[in-house]
Amino acid sequence: MQVAFTPAEIAGFVAAERAAGTTARTIRDIASLKTAQPGDLSFLGNPKYRADVAATRASLILVPLDHVGEPQADQQFLYVKNPSAALARLCARIEQQLWPKPAPGIHPTAAVAPGARVAPSATVGPLCVVEEGAEIGEGSHLQASVFVGRDARIGAGCWIMPGCVIAAACELRDRVRLQPGVIVGSDGFGYEFVNGRHEKVPQIGLVVIEEDVEIGANSTIDRARFSRTVIGEGTKIDNLVQVGHNVIIGKHCILCAQVGISGSTTLEDYVILGGQAGIGGHITLGKGTKAGGQTGIAADTPPGSYLNGTPALPYMAERRLQILHQKLPDLFKRVEYLEQRLEKTSASAQ
Amino acid sequence: MQVAFTPAEIAGFVAAERAAGTTARTIRDIASLKTAQPGDLSFLGNPKYRADVAATRASLILVPLDHVGEPQADQQFLYVKNPSAALARLCARIEQQLWPKPAPGIHPTAAVAPGARVAPSATVGPLCVVEEGAEIGEGSHLQASVFVGRDARIGAGCWIMPGCVIAAACELRDRVRLQPGVIVGSDGFGYEFVNGRHEKVPQIGLVVIEEDVEIGANSTIDRARFSRTVIGEGTKIDNLVQVGHNVIIGKHCILCAQVGISGSTTLEDYVILGGQAGIGGHITLGKGTKAGGQTGIAADTPPGSYLNGTPALPYMAERRLQILHQKLPDLFKRVEYLEQRLEKTSASAQ
Amino acid sequence: MQVAFTPAEIAGFVAAERAAGTTARTIRDIASLKTAQPGDLSFLGNPKYRADVAATRASLILVPLDHVGEPQADQQFLYVKNPSAALARLCARIEQQLWPKPAPGIHPTAAVAPGARVAPSATVGPLCVVEEGAEIGEGSHLQASVFVGRDARIGAGCWIMPGCVIAAACELRDRVRLQPGVIVGSDGFGYEFVNGRHEKVPQIGLVVIEEDVEIGANSTIDRARFSRTVIGEGTKIDNLVQVGHNVIIGKHCILCAQVGISGSTTLEDYVILGGQAGIGGHITLGKGTKAGGQTGIAADTPPGSYLNGTPALPYMAERRLQILHQKLPDLFKRVEYLEQRLEKTSASAQ
Repeated sequence: MQVAFTPAEIAGFVAAERAAGTTARTIRDIASLKTAQPGDLSFLGNPKYRADVAATRASLILVPLDHVGEPQADQQFLYVKNPSAALARLCARIEQQLWPKPAPGIHPTAAVAPGARVAPSATVGPLCVVEEGAEIGEGSHLQASVFVGRDARIGAGCWIMPGCVIAAACELRDRVRLQPGVIVGSDGFGYEFVNGRHEKVPQIGLVVIEEDVEIGANSTIDRARFSRTVIGEGTKIDNLVQVGHNVIIGKHCILCAQVGISGSTTLEDYVILGGQAGIGGHITLGKGTKAGGQTGIAADTPPGSYLNGTPALPYMAERRLQILHQKLPDLFKRVEYLEQRLEKTSASAQ
Repeated sequence: MQVAFTPAEIAGFVAAERAAGTTARTIRDIASLKTAQPGDLSFLGNPKYRADVAATRASLILVPLDHVGEPQADQQFLYVKNPSAALARLCARIEQQLWPKPAPGIHPTAAVAPGARVAPSATVGPLCVVEEGAEIGEGSHLQASVFVGRDARIGAGCWIMPGCVIAAACELRDRVRLQPGVIVGSDGFGYEFVNGRHEKVPQIGLVVIEEDVEIGANSTIDRARFSRTVIGEGTKIDNLVQVGHNVIIGKHCILCAQVGISGSTTLEDYVILGGQAGIGGHITLGKGTKAGGQTGIAADTPPGSYLNGTPALPYMAERRLQILHQKLPDLFKRVEYLEQRLEKTSASAQ
Repeated sequence: MQVAFTPAEIAGFVAAERAAGTTARTIRDIASLKTAQPGDLSFLGNPKYRADVAATRASLILVPLDHVGEPQADQQFLYVKNPSAALARLCARIEQQLWPKPAPGIHPTAAVAPGARVAPSATVGPLCVVEEGAEIGEGSHLQASVFVGRDARIGAGCWIMPGCVIAAACELRDRVRLQPGVIVGSDGFGYEFVNGRHEKVPQIGLVVIEEDVEIGANSTIDRARFSRTVIGEGTKIDNLVQVGHNVIIGKHCILCAQVGISGSTTLEDYVILGGQAGIGGHITLGKGTKAGGQTGIAADTPPGSYLNGTPALPYMAERRLQILHQKLPDLFKRVEYLEQRLEKTSASAQ
């Protein structure tokens, strides 16, 4: 963030009801009360941090209307109804500055095929490639060095960041956001073993990414063998995630970084997978299934499951096993002691 | 897949011996018998799904010559010797449409150094970079935004998809296929710890990728410290896989997504590694070693090993330990009971 | 490596004190004594391999001054004070040939915004994009197809390899080296769950990468929600590593391939993480913490910790538990035997 706002400008952005104190500082950053430096804005979002306000070095602080206390020298309080909401409003304002809406049009260095259809309000940035038959919807933005293959379709209001690849025939619906380096429509991993060699099975299906999906940097979504790989509406995928061919991901799921999902698996709606979780092929995770980081799941899960470990078990069972596992040294000693006692007991009984 | 074929066209592609029923639909997709919709083609590849034919909504169905049953209204059967083989033939036909063979030549937006040698039948797509001394072989296709470094050599019949990087001096033999975003020839991860700092060890070896290798999207293959990192003939590598410096991978291996192989390790021929498996450095996996997903291997394995778990154990031993692990709560109870019984027994014996 | 040196040229590079024997070969590669072929250079870096010198097929061998023995036919020894140091000097020489220092200037195919500041001694290679307000420092090299976003700052002496993305407002200090495909400044993964949907939390902080950091191919470093994600001076990161938003990594850390670090976690200086290790969010790993491959850490660690396993335990404790775990079949048998004995004992005692 490279911002420079006066306290008065910020008071305007957040619709402050009143102020206390003054600061001559230009505000250049946002930080928590504890880590803020002069020139930073901070905020009291949670009443339990109230005591931190008196000690903070922030120059400008968003506080609730009922906040009790006085600013320090060269420090200003801005009183707002809801400091967290006010901060979100400010961040949205800064976001516009970081990522200004570009002017529509096609950059002269982009290579757009004559048969591609780019909506008048769309922006095709420098060094993008848009192949024959591809469509770019209204208001969508290909930032730079984006590849859109033959007959691929990008809906309206999408934002495709630098270095993304949307391969032939794949479809992004409206308001999809791809972080840099995302690959959509790489071939599924399918071979048949014939005479000691792996012969490629053609991968001729496509990928459909529904509305309001976001996908993280350098993640990869394979096209289907045939039919479709689907990422459901509102699902959010983090960085370096692998989604195999013919996977069907439901709506509003969360996949944390480095998750891998093998081919032909289905995630129902609202599934949440922790980082580095690995999901086997040809299974179904029921609605709302949750799994911890590094979990390995190889079988269907009922709706609402909460799993952990490899192989995955219900969270509480896995937690209990972990605790018992750590008591193994003691258990071995107890058994040894029993063996000795039994030896003696039976000796004395004879 | 964006296809539109008439049933008669498809009957020709698959060399149908006869037909039954008729449909007015244009065929636009392929699906399994259970999931097919009107306008889809389906197929009876495995006799055990015979009952699904009567219920399918597919408009066109490939059935074996001896199939018994009648098509529904607006539905056609095409009788073929081997429905799976017929489907493969059709898919190959569709693949040509998805990925048409491009005309040879260098796109005007590509930056090809004067001293690079591009074969007359090769295609260098838009916004590619080919540096001094690099060679691109007959019929090879750099699709778009591909980087080929100094003195790198690409053999004949290769297909390098958008965003791939083949760094200086690396070599791809014939018919290598790189999915989008593959990095070949990044530096190996080697440092010496000197006076509290990690000093870089120069990585001046190269990568050799032998014939008929395929590498998945965003995978990374490090160059050797010196000498070579090698991917053997016919090996297939999935997405987001890491291959460290001086790794030697044999012929016809399979590495599933997100596998990581540490430096200087050797995989003999026909090794198969499940997703997210991690292999330590400076070890050898014997011919035909198989490992399940998320397995961690830190020591040599004999030929034909089948391993699972971290640390890796023979599959059946690991499976048995998993089962016993899950019986720990019971075991703790049994030991506690023994302790109580022994207490009583010895008390009564006194 | 595509080298071709005469033995006399190499004798000069390594400052050999004297030679023995002669070879007519041109030297084209470097290999260990055991694997070397005619035309290769090898070296006796460790006295324990002395016996391998007599059997090696290398044409040219770096040996210490006190080495006893005679070269074979068509083989030359070069006597140097320290063969390992001499090899490093030679490798540095070869590295210059592999990666020649490019001439300063902006390639005509690069898209550099009028308001960007590129130092006169910097090199902006083909098909790079440098946006408004961005700065490229003295002697830095953007190799090809690199994206530098608005107001991003690249220090002096950096080397940014093909396909890297440095997003808006992010900062690389001096001598940072990014392997191909690195993403710096992708959005952090932050959403609030509102009315059944995940609403995006704006990610408006930045990334600061300090001096002498190296980052491996296709790794991803997320920008902070606000404030900074920091990679400390001298830290080295391998391929396909994920660093979440607001992570603070100390100085001189080592992160092996496919490591993942969740948001808002702090690594103090000199932390070393093995491949595929996963670190939870909002925790602190104390100075010098080491973790083995695939370790999962979910809690703070004291300085100097050495951890292994998931959930992570001190290395020796984890190792002991692994051994006991593998003795579970025996333990179950022992308990069963105790049960039978106790049955008998108590029966006989009655």
